[in-house]
Amino acid sequence: MAVYTEVSDEELQAFLREYEIGEMLSLKGIAEGVENSNYVLHTASGYYILTLYEKRVDPADLPFFLGLMEHLAEAGISCPVPIKGRDGSALRELCGRPAAIISFLDGLWPKRIHPWHCQRLGAALAELHLAGESFQIRRDNALSLDGWRGLVDTCEGRADEIEPGLAGLIRQELNFLEANWPSDLPEGVIHADLFPDNVFFVGERLSGVIDFYFACNDFLAYEIAVCLNAWCFESDASTFNATKARMLLQSYQSVRPLSEAELAALPILARGSALRFLLTRLYDILNHPPGAYVTPKDPREYCRKLRFHQLVKGPGAYGLG
Amino acid sequence: MAVYTEVSDEELQAFLREYEIGEMLSLKGIAEGVENSNYVLHTASGYYILTLYEKRVDPADLPFFLGLMEHLAEAGISCPVPIKGRDGSALRELCGRPAAIISFLDGLWPKRIHPWHCQRLGAALAELHLAGESFQIRRDNALSLDGWRGLVDTCEGRADEIEPGLAGLIRQELNFLEANWPSDLPEGVIHADLFPDNVFFVGERLSGVIDFYFACNDFLAYEIAVCLNAWCFESDASTFNATKARMLLQSYQSVRPLSEAELAALPILARGSALRFLLTRLYDILNHPPGAYVTPKDPREYCRKLRFHQLVKGPGAYGLG
Repeated sequence: MAVYTEVSDEELQAFLREYEIGEMLSLKGIAEGVENSNYVLHTASGYYILTLYEKRVDPADLPFFLGLMEHLAEAGISCPVPIKGRDGSALRELCGRPAAIISFLDGLWPKRIHPWHCQRLGAALAELHLAGESFQIRRDNALSLDGWRGLVDTCEGRADEIEPGLAGLIRQELNFLEANWPSDLPEGVIHADLFPDNVFFVGERLSGVIDFYFACNDFLAYEIAVCLNAWCFESDASTFNATKARMLLQSYQSVRPLSEAELAALPILARGSALRFLLTRLYDILNHPPGAYVTPKDPREYCRKLRFHQLVKGPGAYGLG
Repeated sequence: MAVYTEVSDEELQAFLREYEIGEMLSLKGIAEGVENSNYVLHTASGYYILTLYEKRVDPADLPFFLGLMEHLAEAGISCPVPIKGRDGSALRELCGRPAAIISFLDGLWPKRIHPWHCQRLGAALAELHLAGESFQIRRDNALSLDGWRGLVDTCEGRADEIEPGLAGLIRQELNFLEANWPSDLPEGVIHADLFPDNVFFVGERLSGVIDFYFACNDFLAYEIAVCLNAWCFESDASTFNATKARMLLQSYQSVRPLSEAELAALPILARGSALRFLLTRLYDILNHPPGAYVTPKDPREYCRKLRFHQLVKGPGAYGLG
């Protein structure tokens, strides 16, 4: 939970003069979110989200992120739409930080995942992948295979502080993935952080997807593997729920069928995805400033998920017939 | 900044079934606020604030607080209105805590105080005092003279850790106040925590007053003294701005004239109010759990304010002719 930057009423008033969204009526900092400062903004024309991009977002990437949201929304995907100012630009500066106003998207993220959530997610994910095909800007995934070695080098020395044997697990897994990572799967724009807190539901309807600030180009099936990890384990990460996985995969395929090569690659992509979140959580917990507002997530959850996928023989383990 | 209790979508859905405010659309935790957990709630009928009362609020006081807001709103004061459920009650339970839904009040609290803010505040405060006259429930001020001795006894031993000589200052001031505190001033319902973050403005209009969870019965002029301290010092608390005080007092008196006795008592009431916030801030900083989300406020700001009022000879120091 975090709001890193306090916006004064005078600064906000000057900022809003660049927009045609009416008089400023209210601004409330949102407690959720760990990367940026987010506010619910109410003006005479309605409710919006005001985001100030903090130091973990590279300003050079913002045209990609904001452009992607606009592109996806135009293609019919329910996601926040950047609001353009009088100058036609959606990106400007507030309190010395890059800032943007985006539309307010209704919905709550599910705290407890039911199979039907995974079913809704699968189709929405496939639609997002199809809609991304025509997006022209490209952004490499800094947190894919090439980026993992740097994280391993940084964290390896202290990994056993978190769990004995963790350094060895990580090193061996990285070696395996580097030797076996696929190279010829369909690529496209992926959200890359499609955890339950970034997917909103109103009742049983998936109402939208938020937080595109890790989006990048990578294998589309890699994103499915991220979702298998984020949505299909029971909450203690000890049990994989094949029903949820089957719902997700069948629903995805009803919109975008997976090739044989993509299906065959799912286990290794799931191992890679597990290692990716294991490594970033490990980095965060080892480099967590004492007294910081944000509680780091437990990397050991992703050790357990990784060990599950290491034993998987084929995509059948994910509920496919 | 704080949200202490996480509300699941399922718990919220069951809670909202007790109301007639339409389908649940969105819930976002608000970062501001240190006593309770607050959320912006969006339903099919509009935007609301959902509050979960955390441990610093005595549940037995909630009928007073919620009843007062309803009473004031009916009397034309712009403040949040408790929303009643199907059973006619505005107070129920969510996640094991007392909880209420109140109306969403537009406005931003002023980060930098201009004299015109004080002018708007004065009249609004007097209107609030008049509107409170007909409120039937009574709640003693636990943080008035009688309560200060207990805080002094608790904090005195460690006060000099914060500022050398602080224990002596506090003890002497308490003795003075106990010997000289007035006893026969007009009483009524006061807000008792009317700091700038509890007063909202839209443009130059005071749009409302929030957070009645310290409200109680006390001298009406004591509340003016609280506001002199909270609104009329420059930000480093070293300079008292008599223009702001004059604006506040004149504007208050345009709605509710102060008696000679009330005016004469302002300096001692201002000393008492300064001691009250000095003591609670001192208590909070001495008992602050390490790693807590909320940063305690500096009690020394109120040492400086107290020392200013100790030198005041009469109400003329507050900008009156």
